[in-house]
Parts: sequence; C-alpha cells; structure tokens
Amino acid sequence: MRLLNSQQASFEQELTELLAFETVNDPALLATVDDIIAQVRQGGDEVVLKLTQQFDNHPAKTFAELEISQEKLKQAFDGLNPTIKQALELAAQRVTSFHERQRQESWTYQDALGNTLGQQVTPLDKVGIYVPGGLASYPSSVLMNALPAKVAGVGQIIMVVPAPHGELNPLVLAAAYLAGVDKVFTIGGAQAVAALAYGTNTIPQVDKITGPGNKYVAAAKRAVFGQVGIDMIAGPSEVLVYAEGVANDKADWLAMDLLSQAEHDTVAQAIFVTPSEPLLKKVAQEIEKALVDLPKADIAKAAIANRGALILVKDRAEGIEVINRIAPEHLELSVDDPEAMLKDVRHAGAIFMGRYTPEAIGDYCAGPNHVLPTSGTARFSSPLGVYDFQKKSSIIYCSEQGSQMLAKTADILAVEENLDAHARSARYRVK
Amino acid sequence: MRLLNSQQASFEQELTELLAFETVNDPALLATVDDIIAQVRQGGDEVVLKLTQQFDNHPAKTFAELEISQEKLKQAFDGLNPTIKQALELAAQRVTSFHERQRQESWTYQDALGNTLGQQVTPLDKVGIYVPGGLASYPSSVLMNALPAKVAGVGQIIMVVPAPHGELNPLVLAAAYLAGVDKVFTIGGAQAVAALAYGTNTIPQVDKITGPGNKYVAAAKRAVFGQVGIDMIAGPSEVLVYAEGVANDKADWLAMDLLSQAEHDTVAQAIFVTPSEPLLKKVAQEIEKALVDLPKADIAKAAIANRGALILVKDRAEGIEVINRIAPEHLELSVDDPEAMLKDVRHAGAIFMGRYTPEAIGDYCAGPNHVLPTSGTARFSSPLGVYDFQKKSSIIYCSEQGSQMLAKTADILAVEENLDAHARSARYRVK
Repeated sequence: MRLLNSQQASFEQELTELLAFETVNDPALLATVDDIIAQVRQGGDEVVLKLTQQFDNHPAKTFAELEISQEKLKQAFDGLNPTIKQALELAAQRVTSFHERQRQESWTYQDALGNTLGQQVTPLDKVGIYVPGGLASYPSSVLMNALPAKVAGVGQIIMVVPAPHGELNPLVLAAAYLAGVDKVFTIGGAQAVAALAYGTNTIPQVDKITGPGNKYVAAAKRAVFGQVGIDMIAGPSEVLVYAEGVANDKADWLAMDLLSQAEHDTVAQAIFVTPSEPLLKKVAQEIEKALVDLPKADIAKAAIANRGALILVKDRAEGIEVINRIAPEHLELSVDDPEAMLKDVRHAGAIFMGRYTPEAIGDYCAGPNHVLPTSGTARFSSPLGVYDFQKKSSIIYCSEQGSQMLAKTADILAVEENLDAHARSARYRVK
Repeated sequence: MRLLNSQQASFEQELTELLAFETVNDPALLATVDDIIAQVRQGGDEVVLKLTQQFDNHPAKTFAELEISQEKLKQAFDGLNPTIKQALELAAQRVTSFHERQRQESWTYQDALGNTLGQQVTPLDKVGIYVPGGLASYPSSVLMNALPAKVAGVGQIIMVVPAPHGELNPLVLAAAYLAGVDKVFTIGGAQAVAALAYGTNTIPQVDKITGPGNKYVAAAKRAVFGQVGIDMIAGPSEVLVYAEGVANDKADWLAMDLLSQAEHDTVAQAIFVTPSEPLLKKVAQEIEKALVDLPKADIAKAAIANRGALILVKDRAEGIEVINRIAPEHLELSVDDPEAMLKDVRHAGAIFMGRYTPEAIGDYCAGPNHVLPTSGTARFSSPLGVYDFQKKSSIIYCSEQGSQMLAKTADILAVEENLDAHARSARYRVK
C-alpha cells in the first residue's frame, strides 16, 4: 500500500497523482456513447431491445419483456425473508425520515414598496433513476434514489436496471416496490440513459436522471445534460479514514472500514490519514490480515494497490488540510472528539463521526443518502437529496404603486445597456 | 409572426418545431472547444493570451494586461454618473436582500436511538463568473452572478469578461467593484472557461463556473462539468406573455414586453399566448408599430421571424397547459388575477405577475435573479441562486448505544449485497 508523508518535498506531487482520475475524456468512449444515443433517438424501443440483447446478453425477444410489472415487484417484496424485509423497511423508514427534513417550501414576502417577491418550489414531473446491475445491483441504491424523489413529490419515477443474461437480484425489485417506483425496465448503459432522456414509445421521457453507473452511463449522462437534468457524473467511490492513535483506537476496525470501500471496485479509493506512525503501521498490518479470508479480497487488493494510500501527517491541523484538499466522498473521523473537527471540514460528501459510525451504516440505514459526490467534487456538489427533485420559480408581483421606482431604475439601467425595448417596456409602467 | 392555434390538429407538431433548439451538439464546435481546452491545460497563461489576441482582437502584449486591477474597478465605479450609480446601488441592494432569504443553514437532530444526523452547509471556496462581452456586456449580469456568491460566503470570486479590441463597458467594471468581485480578467470564450476550470499560473482554479455565454462558452462549460461545477448550459433567452383580452389590457405594453426579449438576439424567443383573437391581432399590430423606431429593430425582427409566435388557445386552462409544456424562462401573467393562476404553473424560470411587472423590472432590480433556466430546462432547474454557491455534507454521528440496531441492519443488508467487508465493519460495532 502506497505511503505518503506530508513532511516530504514530493508530497503535493504524490497526492496529486494519487487523486488523478479521469474517466469520461476518452474520445473513443465518447464517440461510442454519442452513436448509441443517436441510434436510440432514431430507433426507440427497437434499438433499445437490440442493444440490450447485444450488450447485456438479455434473452428478451420483445421489448415488452424488458418491463417488470408492478405484480412482479410486489411478488419480490412479498417473497422476502422476514429478517431481510424488516431490515429493508427500517432502512426505507429512516431514509424517508431524514430526507423529509430536506424538503423546501415556497415562500413570499412583501418589500417596503408593496411588491410581492418570492420563490415557488415545485417537484419534478418525471424522473429516471439508474440502478447499476450485475455485480453491483444494490437494493440500497434503489431506496437512496427513489425515496428522495418520493419525498419531493415527483409525479412519476421510472427505474432502469440492467439484467445481464436476464438475471436480477430480487431484492432490487423488492426495494423498487417498497420505494414506490412507478415503472421498471431491465435496461442499462448509454441506451437506457438515452431512452430516458428522449423517450421512446414505451419509456417515458423524464426531466432528470439520477444514480451512478459505469463509464458509459457517466458519459451518456454528460451527453444528455441540458436535454434533461442529471445529479452528477459519478466516479469511483472513495473513503478517507482519519484517526490519531489514541488508546481507544482499534486498528482492525479502521482496516475493515477501509476495506469496505476497497471491496467495491478495483479503482475504488481507500485512504487512511493519521499523525500516528505506529497506528499507520498497525492499520497496514490489519489490512493484510483481513484480506486473508475476505470473499472479495481480489478486488480489494487491486484497489488498495492501484489507488489506496496511507498518509502520515504532522498533526490534526494538517490532517484537516489533507481532508479538504481531497474533498472525500466519505470521511470517517474516528476520534474521541469529532465535533471539534467538524467546523473545519469544508469539503466532504458525508462525514461519519466517532468510532461507532462506520461508513457501512451510512451506506444502508443511517438515513442520509449514499449517493455522494466523488473524485473531489464535494468541493462544489452535495449528496443526492430532495433538493435534486424540486426546482424553484421566482415570483415577482409588482403593485401599480410599487412598480414606480423599480420601473424608473430599470429604465435607467436598460438605456445604459442599449436595450431600448426593455427601457420602453419599463417606462410604460411609470405614471 | 408565426401563428399557432391550439384547436388545429397540427398544433402539437408545430409547437414542437417552434421550441426545437439544440446548440451544443455540433461535432465541429465540440472538437474546436475540446482542442482549446487541451491547449489551455497545456500552455496556461501564454495560450490564453494568444487565443485572446486571436479571437477577441485584444491588443494586449502580455498576460498581465488582461487583468484589471481593483484600482481600475474602483475608478470605474467612482466615475459613474450619480443617477446611474444610484440605480446600480438600488439594484444591488434589492438583489442582495432577496438572495439573503435563499441562504441555507446547517441543521442536526437526534433520532430516537440517540444518534445525531444532519446536514452541514458550507460555501464554495472559489467561483468563476462568466460575463458576456462585446454587444451583450451587461452590468446587471455581473450583479446577478456575483451577489448570490457573496451572500453564500464564497471565498473568492473571479470574473472573466471578454473585451473585443480591448474595449469594455465601464459599467461592467463598476458593477464588479460594487459586487465585491475579487479578480477580473478580460478573457472570454472556451479559453476563459478552460482557464477557470484548470487554473493557470495567474488565473485561480475555481470550483464552479456560472453565467451565460455564446455557444463556445456553453460547449466548454459542458466539457469541464465534473472537473468543476456549472450552473446550467444556457440557451437563447425566451419570454412567454399571457393575457386574456379584457378591458385593462394594453396591447402596446404587451408588444413591448415581447420585443424586450426579441431585441436580445436573433434567436431569442418571444411567445404570446391568449384565448382572445382580437387581442392577438392587436398585439401583432403593436409589434409592427413599435418596430418602426426601435434601435435594435433588425435583431428584434429577425428574432420574431425566426422563433416568435402568437398562440391562440381555447381558454385559460389550455393556456396553462401550453405554459407548462413550454416551461418558459420568463413568464408574464398579464391578467387581473395572476395569483389564481400561480398554483397551476409547474414550470417557469421566473413568473412576472400582473400588468405592472414587465420582465425588464426583473432583469434589473426587482431582486430575484435574471440568470434563469432556458429552452424548457425550467422543467428540472432553477434560477441561479445562493444554493448554487453552497453545498452540503451529510453528518452521521452514532453513539455506542445508538449504533447497535443500525449496525445489525447494515450487516444484514450488506450480506445480501455480497459486500462482506461492509458487513464485518458494521458487525465490529455490535457488542
């Protein structure tokens, strides 16, 4: 596992290399995705079926077989083992409860001139949620995408999830039922994104597409952005775990928290930051130990080798600098007093505080969303939330009297901008 | 001016054609923009200087000449005619006051298990604002981009504005001073977007780029999205004016409101919707009359011919359907009872209510932002606002006791997702 030391001259350079990751700039990939989008816009359902047979080896003979009925979703839910059903229900209830606090309401106020100003908040009409399939088909992702849309009051939620060889995790269908998804299609890749963005005879055209996917999905989301809204362009997942080597630290816990990121993907990133060299060494040893019998050890080992790092810093203040520089998707502050660090954390998708908050709890059932800004984009973006499924319209309502001073001001500024029709239109309102 | 009638069978088809507009999908444009971005990433200041000389005919001999000092900004402000200064100050004060109501605050709460959950809201560190230059260099755009960032608490605001032949509207510099912009560079186009996204020796790398521009700017913003945040991909500006042909209607006012959109750009869109055929005819006549002596009549005529429309609908209900179908950037409800229509408006950037609220007032000084979602994107996006300059981090802080049930639930669900390190990491926390 790579070792970085903030006291070395090469640190900044090494950190930059550690964080470098650009997926979607490969011209061949972009050309492929553009071509798929053009094909889907042209050929609709028929093309989507053909590409799904081709890329996913899906055995469907007709497009209709790619849609999963509400009856099937209900069957999947009803067929759940009670323990699992209860766990899924607890997760759904907590995610809903957290997200309800994010709902924004409309507001208006009167200014001193007697004009009414405000903001009308409305839900999106239709959204598409992309749920990865195959290896990484997660019921938790269904809940995390669909429930904020539900809380926002979205009219129709269309889910797409690829089913390689026609196979799907029944838990994914059960979660779609539990979350109240309106339609489910077993399609994926750029073709699914294109179908949602432009609509086909069967697939409704949506207003926004959310949820992570592979590089084809990411490139397709970028390409259709503007035609529809998108949440973000997701990169590989990362965690940054910070601890200080005090008595309560458990190196095996910290190691497993790092591995729970590394097991996702060979390009997932697990970074441990500490001012304690002894703890750093212990954590490295515990990672080796844990890898011995981890089912996904191969993936985790590759991730650790490719993109993992142990970073030794001088002290807590420097640890926080490194945190803000990395702007991690997941940040674990495994210290006795995480609340003392919180105010200095400027950039992170989600902050897991103290020793009893491993990332895994947040991934499933703490309540906050697990769709989070990756690859340093926490510098400017936020967890998926209810706000992604609401939008605002400004409200301006001038009274006859209240418009007078504003119309005169607009007239003056419009003349300066050489916009004469603007000036005249304002001037008409002046008595 | 094109006439559409909702009662004709061809209406939906004609409406679709009226609204069709795709700028950024031209492969040659995208290739040019990608090339410019690659050059700027490679060559920094030197390339930006070269491209600015080439594209903007800027006379600067060194990169340093492209930066405008704070002293020059202050001079521009101090040199303003008092009437104009007062108008600009009133606009700034009202825009600030409206946007202060958009500021989001951090929140936390305790769940029933004793865990703390919440959302930490922080401002972006650095943002770049793009202000169009040349023909459309507007001081109002400076205020509308910079002030929400200021209200959010952004650390550094970098403004770029192209200066063709080295010429700049001094009002733009004065507005930058008034709004508290930190740095101003007279550069534009894809090269300015690339410089802000990746940074150069002189231009700070920003976290987000906002503000409208031409098709090169729009394509460049799309290309750097992910590297930095962007507000939206702006298309041409539009207005939809709705009136019903009652006694208080003034056809000349309505015509001028439509022209105040049309004078912006030959592809700007002005649409009048009414259930009253007599009013529709009167407005068409008043447009012709007003064009006679409008300084920008050529632009406005071209816009009206290219993309303008008069739409006759059956009644108010159908008018609202057309409004929601179009999702206009600017919506004027020029009726006696606009508040009765408001709740049914699902999609619009800004809603101008009643007869004394022409779009021009909103463009300059009502308070709400004039950077608005265009081309139907009000279906999923919002006016530029303080929320564009803040981001959120989820907070999860489990107590030892409070983590028990959550860790067990995470364990169960992680096992179902075949994520064993997740399950073990959760299980470690169970007593």
